[in-house]
Amino acid sequence: MHESSSARLRITCADRPGIVAAVSNFLYSHGANITSLDQYSTDPEGGVFFMRQEFQTPHLDLTRSALESAFQGVVADRFEMDWNITYSTDKKRMAVLVSGQEHCLLELLWRWSRGELDCDVRMVLSNHPVHREAVEAFGIPYHYIAEAADDRAAAEARMLELLEGQVDVLVLARYMRILTGEFVSRFPESIINIHHSFLPAFPGADPYRQAKDRGVKLIGATAHYVTAELDAGPIIEQDVARVSHRQSVEELRRLGRDIERQVLARAVRLHLEDRIIVHQNKTIVFR
Amino acid sequence: MHESSSARLRITCADRPGIVAAVSNFLYSHGANITSLDQYSTDPEGGVFFMRQEFQTPHLDLTRSALESAFQGVVADRFEMDWNITYSTDKKRMAVLVSGQEHCLLELLWRWSRGELDCDVRMVLSNHPVHREAVEAFGIPYHYIAEAADDRAAAEARMLELLEGQVDVLVLARYMRILTGEFVSRFPESIINIHHSFLPAFPGADPYRQAKDRGVKLIGATAHYVTAELDAGPIIEQDVARVSHRQSVEELRRLGRDIERQVLARAVRLHLEDRIIVHQNKTIVFR
Amino acid sequence: MHESSSARLRITCADRPGIVAAVSNFLYSHGANITSLDQYSTDPEGGVFFMRQEFQTPHLDLTRSALESAFQGVVADRFEMDWNITYSTDKKRMAVLVSGQEHCLLELLWRWSRGELDCDVRMVLSNHPVHREAVEAFGIPYHYIAEAADDRAAAEARMLELLEGQVDVLVLARYMRILTGEFVSRFPESIINIHHSFLPAFPGADPYRQAKDRGVKLIGATAHYVTAELDAGPIIEQDVARVSHRQSVEELRRLGRDIERQVLARAVRLHLEDRIIVHQNKTIVFR
Amino acid sequence: MHESSSARLRITCADRPGIVAAVSNFLYSHGANITSLDQYSTDPEGGVFFMRQEFQTPHLDLTRSALESAFQGVVADRFEMDWNITYSTDKKRMAVLVSGQEHCLLELLWRWSRGELDCDVRMVLSNHPVHREAVEAFGIPYHYIAEAADDRAAAEARMLELLEGQVDVLVLARYMRILTGEFVSRFPESIINIHHSFLPAFPGADPYRQAKDRGVKLIGATAHYVTAELDAGPIIEQDVARVSHRQSVEELRRLGRDIERQVLARAVRLHLEDRIIVHQNKTIVFR
Repeated sequence: MHESSSARLRITCADRPGIVAAVSNFLYSHGANITSLDQYSTDPEGGVFFMRQEFQTPHLDLTRSALESAFQGVVADRFEMDWNITYSTDKKRMAVLVSGQEHCLLELLWRWSRGELDCDVRMVLSNHPVHREAVEAFGIPYHYIAEAADDRAAAEARMLELLEGQVDVLVLARYMRILTGEFVSRFPESIINIHHSFLPAFPGADPYRQAKDRGVKLIGATAHYVTAELDAGPIIEQDVARVSHRQSVEELRRLGRDIERQVLARAVRLHLEDRIIVHQNKTIVFR
Repeated sequence: MHESSSARLRITCADRPGIVAAVSNFLYSHGANITSLDQYSTDPEGGVFFMRQEFQTPHLDLTRSALESAFQGVVADRFEMDWNITYSTDKKRMAVLVSGQEHCLLELLWRWSRGELDCDVRMVLSNHPVHREAVEAFGIPYHYIAEAADDRAAAEARMLELLEGQVDVLVLARYMRILTGEFVSRFPESIINIHHSFLPAFPGADPYRQAKDRGVKLIGATAHYVTAELDAGPIIEQDVARVSHRQSVEELRRLGRDIERQVLARAVRLHLEDRIIVHQNKTIVFR
Repeated sequence: MHESSSARLRITCADRPGIVAAVSNFLYSHGANITSLDQYSTDPEGGVFFMRQEFQTPHLDLTRSALESAFQGVVADRFEMDWNITYSTDKKRMAVLVSGQEHCLLELLWRWSRGELDCDVRMVLSNHPVHREAVEAFGIPYHYIAEAADDRAAAEARMLELLEGQVDVLVLARYMRILTGEFVSRFPESIINIHHSFLPAFPGADPYRQAKDRGVKLIGATAHYVTAELDAGPIIEQDVARVSHRQSVEELRRLGRDIERQVLARAVRLHLEDRIIVHQNKTIVFR
Repeated sequence: MHESSSARLRITCADRPGIVAAVSNFLYSHGANITSLDQYSTDPEGGVFFMRQEFQTPHLDLTRSALESAFQGVVADRFEMDWNITYSTDKKRMAVLVSGQEHCLLELLWRWSRGELDCDVRMVLSNHPVHREAVEAFGIPYHYIAEAADDRAAAEARMLELLEGQVDVLVLARYMRILTGEFVSRFPESIINIHHSFLPAFPGADPYRQAKDRGVKLIGATAHYVTAELDAGPIIEQDVARVSHRQSVEELRRLGRDIERQVLARAVRLHLEDRIIVHQNKTIVFR
């Protein structure tokens, strides 16, 4: 969707009467035209309130910083809000991390090149050298981080050097190394992973084999934010496909690739459009 | 969800800045606690704006009629709104019309008896006598409207006698007679039909045979509001199921029954919760 | 589909060349007209072979026992087959076990009354007295097995008294008591349970609350054969529905009921049509 | 699945007893190891019978031509079969035709390059020059067929020159020109098109706009064999995705691209694996 100049406000606070009115008034009075408004409350009595508003900015009567400072003073303080505003003109800077399998990586790059993902893809990092040509064909730098089996720390240090301050979001597009808690803590709610099962079923290694062994009739994929605990971060998006006894583990992998590509692409898009609020290891997703 | 005392406001008007603020302010200033807000605009510049707000009413500072009159004066006139408010304490009165097949009828009655459909089922009308026992077991009056093949008018007159002023919504639960435009015009946007195909594919008679003949790989069902034009009213809900060459027409009918039941029940629930706004023969459905 | 007189042959054996030819020849030479044939091999070299053939029996040149004895001698011994034949004229006798929630029970009884489930429903057993009227309206005996909290053994003994020798298949239609291994062992591959999650995610108690806590974006249901290990038996059928942060635990339960009903009904039908072969805690399902 | 050397036999004939036995015997007696067998009959009494058998060929005791000639004499004549055998070692030669939108084209080429589509992609033809670089990067010749608006005949003549005798299957990957009946007749049951709607809903031009105008709640895509009648050929595969009032026509197109890619890729794969039999403008698809 093209909005020549718009902004997105996301809010989390304790629910009580008057929030929508206060926020809408504030935006209206400063010349913002609200084009989309979503809200959700866990409970109108004593629950937690979440809201996302998207508004056009051409007629704002304040600068960004003045607007944000006024919002803090006039609205946010009163309701003790956690909030932030993002601007469509500030494109998010993205890095993609990948291992041997390229299907999720290529899906993202293809969608990005078509204009479906509104971001700057700054670089691709991999512990495999093989995707260089495909990535560079998109005009994107490719960094092969060779990794001694016993030196995870050095690899992560090299990655941090490339990433820190340079990117806003990291996408693990079938990146098969476990990131340390230390590394993850540098990018809170900013690392998106695709896990090739319907979590919490089949966490960990080789989920398609686990699925075959258990004899499930559906296989799935899960996109989630990465936290220190493996495969346990807030779930953004999931989907499944029907299978039967006939599929070998290899065929489950092939079918699974199609789900992984779709689920990861949808999750990345939701993130880039600032449609997600994380709360207590779960996501509120305003579609 | 049970809200002991709540109301729903639905609005349609030309989009322009300030609507959300004006409505939210009005409700807040009169003691309404907004628990749900959905809005949609076909285009922020010159489009049509739709909104649904659900709010709790215990702390309202005005009577219903005073509130509505104030809303008209303070907000609706200013934005030239089409609007209405419904109250959770005013249960909708429902009639179900059915022919020979009872699966949709029983699905609705079972859900209603379980508390899933918040309405009063006032009566069941049928051109078949066979469902009397099943319906009366739910404590609901059953009216068998015998119908001479050449006297549609007399049957409709009899039905109008029973229905008019007595019910707010009519559900055609596989009612296989075509209602006249005259009859339909008495219940605008208040008659819900389930058609046993994925409309606009296979309108008219025997859609499962049409589906078999065309060799489609999915069959579907469509719930829609009834208008004067057969099978062409605003679509509320649709769903499909996968089939193959193996299913006979009879098996398509059996599989189709499951989709029909689900789709009709979902559509009726959406209507009862005032989640639908009809505009230019299409529906805006706020879920 | 009604076939006035047909039989189903199911076979499991080591795969090697010539099985299909041998079985098909045998049936053809004795006047059986094959109407359906499905086969599957885990691996043509050294794998396990599974086959289901459905055939019409009016022109058989042998009695049942002579046919079966000839099959053993001519075909089964040669390939060391596990096999059995069931006959459409021998309707399976079914019992349904249920606790407080009746949605799965009623779904089965309604489908059975409509002719969708080809079996004799012999009785309904429950640890709750409340469903008697609904069940007896279908002409089916209802046995309320009162249960002291500390006397599971007595309850199971009473149930066995009613069931053993009287039924061929037990359906746990949201029966919320855990059956002992001893009880289960009396009905091998003949007890079908519906679990209200997408197994192996969320086994055990209150899976919808578990699902809410984990923040999954799909909820599901799983029909499986009951084994001594809780929620770990061979999976017959699964399905899911999309949910979001908006659904409370109670709403997940309501949405889940629709999936449970569909999944259990499909699984029971597959069982009644002898479409399932169990092998190494997994199912081969020939649809 | 890789089978180093296998063949597929497809049969259509009038149903009568003994077909499975005769075919299986024949194959077994000549050293063929059957690895997959599917059959379907429209009606065991007087219906039409369809069968697909896949078998390993290393231990065949005859050459191809001797085997086929023996099959005709021993089995096919007796049952008056339409039949053919294809061999895994004879890769199908494929051409892709494309217009301005490249998503289906790239999906096919990417899957092909990964080994998911077992064929030789011989060339890509387009009435647009823009995809040359992307296609040639896969090592595939790209032919731009410039087309004067009034000279469809010349363009088709040029295409026939390139295609005839050179390819076995043509895939229209969002090729937006209508092929003449004359052209289509040169490739019977060998041209696969992706139509961007759930046929028979919304045939012809701009189906996403048609879908928006009708207000459907699901959009779909249909892969079908091309016949002389536009959008009316035998359907191979279909799928849908849920939409709402919120999606603009442009967003329906974007969501639709994902369905189109999946549905076309599945259809092409089914064709390449010889899993489809066409009969009376419908497909029997043995999965």
